[in-house]
This record gives sequence, structure tokens and C-alpha cells, in this order.
Amino acid sequence: MFNNIITSDQFNKSDVSYICTMATHIRKIAKTKEGLLFLKSVLPHKRAMLYFDQPSTRTFLSFYSACQILGMNIAEVRDINTSSELKGESPEDSIRTLSSYFDLIIIRSKDKDFPKRMANLFLNIERTIPIINAGSGSAEHPTQALLDIYTLLRSFENTGGITGKNIMFVGDLKRSRTVKSLSKLLTLYYDVHQTFVAPKQLQATDEILQFSDKISYTLSEDFESQLKKADAIYMTRIQSEWDTNGESSKIDISKFCLNKHHLNLLKKDAVVMHPLPRRNEIGTEIDRDPRAMYWRQVRNGMWIRVALIAILFSVDVKILKYTYNNS
Amino acid sequence: MFNNIITSDQFNKSDVSYICTMATHIRKIAKTKEGLLFLKSVLPHKRAMLYFDQPSTRTFLSFYSACQILGMNIAEVRDINTSSELKGESPEDSIRTLSSYFDLIIIRSKDKDFPKRMANLFLNIERTIPIINAGSGSAEHPTQALLDIYTLLRSFENTGGITGKNIMFVGDLKRSRTVKSLSKLLTLYYDVHQTFVAPKQLQATDEILQFSDKISYTLSEDFESQLKKADAIYMTRIQSEWDTNGESSKIDISKFCLNKHHLNLLKKDAVVMHPLPRRNEIGTEIDRDPRAMYWRQVRNGMWIRVALIAILFSVDVKILKYTYNNS
Amino acid sequence: MFNNIITSDQFNKSDVSYICTMATHIRKIAKTKEGLLFLKSVLPHKRAMLYFDQPSTRTFLSFYSACQILGMNIAEVRDINTSSELKGESPEDSIRTLSSYFDLIIIRSKDKDFPKRMANLFLNIERTIPIINAGSGSAEHPTQALLDIYTLLRSFENTGGITGKNIMFVGDLKRSRTVKSLSKLLTLYYDVHQTFVAPKQLQATDEILQFSDKISYTLSEDFESQLKKADAIYMTRIQSEWDTNGESSKIDISKFCLNKHHLNLLKKDAVVMHPLPRRNEIGTEIDRDPRAMYWRQVRNGMWIRVALIAILFSVDVKILKYTYNNS
Repeated sequence: MFNNIITSDQFNKSDVSYICTMATHIRKIAKTKEGLLFLKSVLPHKRAMLYFDQPSTRTFLSFYSACQILGMNIAEVRDINTSSELKGESPEDSIRTLSSYFDLIIIRSKDKDFPKRMANLFLNIERTIPIINAGSGSAEHPTQALLDIYTLLRSFENTGGITGKNIMFVGDLKRSRTVKSLSKLLTLYYDVHQTFVAPKQLQATDEILQFSDKISYTLSEDFESQLKKADAIYMTRIQSEWDTNGESSKIDISKFCLNKHHLNLLKKDAVVMHPLPRRNEIGTEIDRDPRAMYWRQVRNGMWIRVALIAILFSVDVKILKYTYNNS
Repeated sequence: MFNNIITSDQFNKSDVSYICTMATHIRKIAKTKEGLLFLKSVLPHKRAMLYFDQPSTRTFLSFYSACQILGMNIAEVRDINTSSELKGESPEDSIRTLSSYFDLIIIRSKDKDFPKRMANLFLNIERTIPIINAGSGSAEHPTQALLDIYTLLRSFENTGGITGKNIMFVGDLKRSRTVKSLSKLLTLYYDVHQTFVAPKQLQATDEILQFSDKISYTLSEDFESQLKKADAIYMTRIQSEWDTNGESSKIDISKFCLNKHHLNLLKKDAVVMHPLPRRNEIGTEIDRDPRAMYWRQVRNGMWIRVALIAILFSVDVKILKYTYNNS
Repeated sequence: MFNNIITSDQFNKSDVSYICTMATHIRKIAKTKEGLLFLKSVLPHKRAMLYFDQPSTRTFLSFYSACQILGMNIAEVRDINTSSELKGESPEDSIRTLSSYFDLIIIRSKDKDFPKRMANLFLNIERTIPIINAGSGSAEHPTQALLDIYTLLRSFENTGGITGKNIMFVGDLKRSRTVKSLSKLLTLYYDVHQTFVAPKQLQATDEILQFSDKISYTLSEDFESQLKKADAIYMTRIQSEWDTNGESSKIDISKFCLNKHHLNLLKKDAVVMHPLPRRNEIGTEIDRDPRAMYWRQVRNGMWIRVALIAILFSVDVKILKYTYNNS
């Protein structure tokens, strides 16, 4: 189906649908001890390398867990200071060395093209192994986009799916790779309206709006009025780590935060999402509202990643068989 | 039996006794390859998170080993610098995220109330998982106290148990959380005398002596004379890391160190303990004396932790069955 | 056969031969899923500690992979800052603590005698476990020497073996522990000529040439003329990390680099080796030449380490049986 996971562009609608179906099978299998032991028996002979040159806890642990669930052995390179790169080695040589030891490399990188470049490197060598992009630069985070789609699909299961929905993005839309990847993936679905709500300085740019011929969209600064019309509210935090001059500290973000008093404005069937970590964009008092989906997103992310790894190693059929034999 | 391990206060005498019995079963099972493979088959479907925000090698590795012995998969968060907390996340959100991925969280924290607060957090959410306190602040180290009791029980197996014994604590009694937790746990046993030997500035404080209505105790600065009367000598190092002004460097500790020439003064059946790491409180020439128990404490700690995890996941019965089927 | 792996001096020719044969068996077994699962079933009841006090990625991951291949559980101590040694513990106590938790310790150390000293420590205590030296100081790197010999043996399989060959070392011969260990091991083979090509300041010293009564050798600064006569070219990088005053930056190394235009000068059956990481000693355009063996060295290193661990735990016979039952 695919040899690597590099960009959300690589998936068509039926790919996404298949990946999500697989995630659901896996999620259900994992509900019993027998199911968990079956999953651990799927890839015990494979070993994964998590190569993260950017700080990350949650994506790192999500992949880590996904590998463990499939019975894989794992090793990691996170602190470039304890690595041979100090001795002047090229990243190409580092990755090729890792490919000598492991069967899969999961890469998180500051450099937006790094995962793609490494995948190309492998086209020319004997021992080729799959690569997964776990977030590169400010551009791509394909597995996050997939887990968000999966969360939307699950949330709208009884209300007609993603088709026809109004998805509202709120916060730092200019710099969030998550928003970019998800917005792009949403163009695969029919009749979706995208609403971008942000202070002027952080509003969605052409990087997102280049698809404007494919999508119907609204730009707005009015959080409350848009809130009432949204089927999904996708909150994001200010990505001040990309500031060059502390500029985001000058922006009044208080009007773009979701708190208790908004709950009555929200549609009854709407869902609230957030890629986490959050700051004060969502008050903790929202956590127990049944429309809060951000903690479920965390679990969904793990299942999507298990599904992707299973598909990369062509063991998805094995999982389908288990499902059909046990249902 | 219990859902979390937060404080040594939570155990009554029969709890302690059961935990120690379980540790002994596990220790004996682990003597054969078959036994080790059985233990690894107990929790292969569970995954543990070691969340350590304080430097630690030995407690960390002891828990790490305990999880491995039960076949669990493990992940760790140790360096807060590579974690999302940099991005302004609350500890509550971090721990809740971890609980989405893992089945057990083992916490070491500078903040004495952190493990308890996190356990309370889980009372209100759907996916609840157990928490183990692996040392919090200067107050609590319940698993260390249990391993110390276990070492005492094993040491006094043929001399009537802990009842009636004189347990002597030496060193930095003011600031050792180990001493605090163990002293408290000893109050569960009948007719135990506790002797606290330290330079004035480091003597046991009310934090320990508040139980003085329950215990018979002696405060002393005379190491040698007390030494002769003790059934167990529990040595500790100066915890200079809690100094605010280098004050402990001014204290003459030389009279509170155990060396070769004390061996004749010690009772024949006495035991010498130390939570380690040691500095010069115990000369290495003592290591080969049969009364030196501190290396055995290290192994005992591992077995106690295996036992606690087994009990938390209610697989202790499985271990009991194995023992009875194989004896 | 041996209880520890401390120095390349400890092996005679038949040891080396047996280790290499074992590595080949393991490499072949690992070609199928069934074989990989068999290997994982060999040591699932054993746990290894990787204690690395020097930065290292590739040797670390090679051992890590070797342990995983045999089904071992692993833990690591790499950052001495998060360890108890901060609290003033002696290395002897640290290693003894580790030996309480684990069944094997793999040590990488700045101190050239550290692995040996620790192995001696274990002679006097009850619970003795094997130690592997994964590189100590500038003196010893026995497992690297073995993997280099293994690569030579495989490369010369159809051309009469190592006997009678001319092995040429190039680069920083003064400070490379790899060259020292390999040169010494080559003295086990009959009629081997060793050629040392380096700028004067980095030429092989008496540390290597002390065996000159046992070996036939040439010292030279003329890379190109020696190149034509070599059966194996062992390239090394400048070890500037041992500089005291940036002295190696003043050396013109350009005449000691292998590039495209040398390929015609090389013997048709010659092999090009490098312990990696490389800088510019070998141009990447050489990588696809069939005589380039340095990427194969990486994989060979992993197999040699699997073989060594298997032998240390006396499970080599189990592997031999599997080979004979499946061929």
C-alpha cells in the first residue's frame, strides 16, 4: 500500500478510510488480554529506531507505545550530544548506520525535508527499510493529521460522517503544522466548510489557503459567533517557540480561549479537539463535558500509529483475520 | 488489596507480611530458568511508565528490573528538558497523557505530595491506572521502607522476627526519608526499641518522634556504646544535597562511621544495613562480613517491587498457584 | 570458553575462528522470521546493562541490537548526571549495584583499565556476572577488532583467507584503539604483512610496533603507491577529540583520503574498510563499489556481538543445534 509515511499528501480518501478501519479493529482487539497478546505476536521479530532530533514527549511515547503493542523491540536516539554526529558524521551516514541495525526508522526532525531525503537515500542501497515522518519542521505531521481525521470520523459516526460539516480551527493557525496537515486532508471529504478563527497576526496563510479552490472557508476574528455554527472546534496553542522576537507575547489571546460559559453556545453534537499540550486555550473545567475529545485524541493517535506500522509491514491482513475469527 | 502505593502509612502489619511473603515466593521462583519464564508470562500485556523528575539510578533500575521480570514493557520520562512541559503544560495534563498510553505510572518527585495528587486526579476520570510512589520530596519512600522491613524479617527469621529487637539508626536522621518511612513502619511491630544515633544537628526530629507514644526509643551521640546493644544497625549518609548553606560540611561525622575495628563490638547476630549509595559511613572492608546486609537489601528491593506490582495488578494469586504447583 | 571479554589479547586463533563461525550461523538463522523468533527464545530470561560513560551511538546500538536479537531485556546508564555517582558513590559500588539487578554488564569507559578492574571485583563476591569491554580509553576495543577480523575472513573466503595478505592501515594510526586492537589480532595469522600509511605525526607508534618481531611491516607516507599493493585498506578518521592543542587541524590529511580516482589503482579483489564514523577519508562515491565493505562491517559487528553474548552464556550449543537441525 505504501513503503514510507512522509506526507499527508500521499493518502487518498480510501487510504485514510482503510487506515482508520484498521485502527478501529486494533483498538477493539486490544480490549482483552488475549487480544493484546495476539497484537504482541504480530511483529516480535522486528525492531524500530525512534530518531528524534526535536524535543517531544507525547508523539515519542505514542509511537513507542504503538511499537510495544505490536511486540517490536525499540531503541532510540534523542540526544544528539551523545551521538557520533559529534564526530562529524553526515546525517545520511547516521541514518544508514541505523538502517543496518533496525527494521523501521521513525524520524522527528527540525528540518522539514529530512524524512523525505532519507527515504530517497534508501532507494539506492541494498538494505531498504521503511521510514515514518513523526513531524518535520513547521510543515508536516502526517500521523497527527490522520489521528485527527480518525477522531472526527469516530465523533461523526452517527451524524453522517465528515461530509457537510463545519470544522473550525482556532488559535495559532499561521504556524501550526498540525492545522496545515489536517486542513489539507479535509479536502478529501465532500462539502466540508473550514472556519479559521485567529487574531490577525496568527491567521491562516496561503500555505493553507492555496487549496481555497477546493474548499469553502471563512476567515474570522469573532470566536463566539463562529463557535455556535461549528461541528468541530479544533483549538491550538500559541507556538511561541517559533517567535523570533517574542512577538506572540504581545497578542491578546484571551478572546480565543474556550471556557465554561461557552458550553451553552456549542452545538449539542459538536466536538472539541486539541492536539495538546494545551496552555489556557481550554479550561480544565471543560474536560468532563462529553463533547471534549482531546483526551480521546491521545488514545486515537496511538491506535492510528499501530495501524500504520502494521500496514507498512504488511501484517494488516493478519489483523483482519484475527478480527473476523473473533467476532 | 490496594489501588496505589503512595505512603507507608497505608500498610497494616498483615499487608506488610503478605507483601514480604509474596516477595519470597517470587525470589524463589526466579532461581530457575523456568521460573523466570513463568514470571515474564505474568504481565506481558501491561506497560509501565517510569516518570522520574529527580536524579536516581538505583531506585529507577530496581523498578525497571521489577517490571522486566514480570514481562512488562517499559517507557521512561526522566529529562524534563526533552518533554512537552517546556511548552507550558501542567503536570496534571502530562500525567493524564501518560495514563492514556500506559497501564502503570511509577513516580519519583521532588514534590512530596505529587504522587498523591496524581492518584486523586485519577479518581475523576474514566481511564484509571495505578500509581506507585518511588520517593517524593524528603517525606516518603514507601517501597524503600518495605524492602528494609523485608531485609529485617529475613535477617531475623531464625531469631524470633522483628518483635523485641533494638533497631539503631545512624547518620543524617533529620533529613533521610528512608529513616522516616522505616521508623514509622516499625511501629507496626511489638516491643521494638528504636535507637537514634547522630550528631546533634542531624538528630531525629519530631517528624519521627511524633510516634513516641507508640515506640520506645533512645537518642544518643555515642555510636560505640549503642552499637553493642543493637540488633540491626541502619547506617545512612549525610544528605548534603538538602543543605542550604553547606552546613553539613562543618559536622564531624567521623565518629558515626562503621569500620573494621567495630566488628568485634557488634552482636554476633546483628545485621548492618544501608540504603546506599554510601560514602565513607561503612568501610568496604566490612562488605565481606556475614552481618553486612546492604548488598542483599539491593536485591530485596527488586523482589519487593515485583511483589507490589503483582499485587497491584491482582496477579498475586497466579504467583501463589505457581509456587504451590512447583513445591 | 571465557567468562568476560576484556581485551583482544585473550583470544587465540581458534577462539577467533569459533566466534566468527558462530556469527555466521547466527547471521544465517536471522534471515527468516522463524530463525529470528528462535534467536529471541535463546536468552529471554537474562537482562543486560549497558553502562556507557563515553558518548557513543554506533557501538551502543550494536550491542543494544545484539541483546534484543537474543531476546534479552536491556537497561542503560549513559548520563552520569542522573546517576547516584553524583552522591559520591565509588564506581565499584555502582557496578556492584548493577550486578545485583542484571545478568551482564557491557562497559564503555574513558578509563582504559575500568572493565578489567570491575571483572576483578567480581572475583571476590557471591553474585558474579560477565563483563564485556565495549571500548576502554584509547587502548582497547576488542569487539571492534573481532568484527574487523570477521569482515576480513568473509571478504577473503574465496581467496585463501587472511594468510599471506597485505593489510594496509591509513590515517590516525597513533591514536586509534581500533587499529591497535586489530593489528594485534592479525599477528595470530600466518604471513600477514601490515602496512601503516600516515602523516608523520600520526604514524603508528611502539604501542603497535612492539609486536614487530612477530610481524612483517612497512611504514610509509605514500598513500597511492602502497594502495596498489594492498589486499585490504583500513581507513580511519583523525581522532581530534584526543588533541590537547588543536594540533591535528594543522596536518594536511588530503593525501590520505580515498576517492573515485583511486578505484582503478585498487586490486580487483581488495576490500575497503572503515570503523566509521567517517569524515572525508572516503568519498561517498565509493559506497557503491563492490569492494566497499564498511557498511557490511556495521552489520558484521552486530552478529559478532550476538555470537559473543551467546558464548558467554553458554548457549552457543543451542545455536549450533538449531543450525544443524535446519540445514
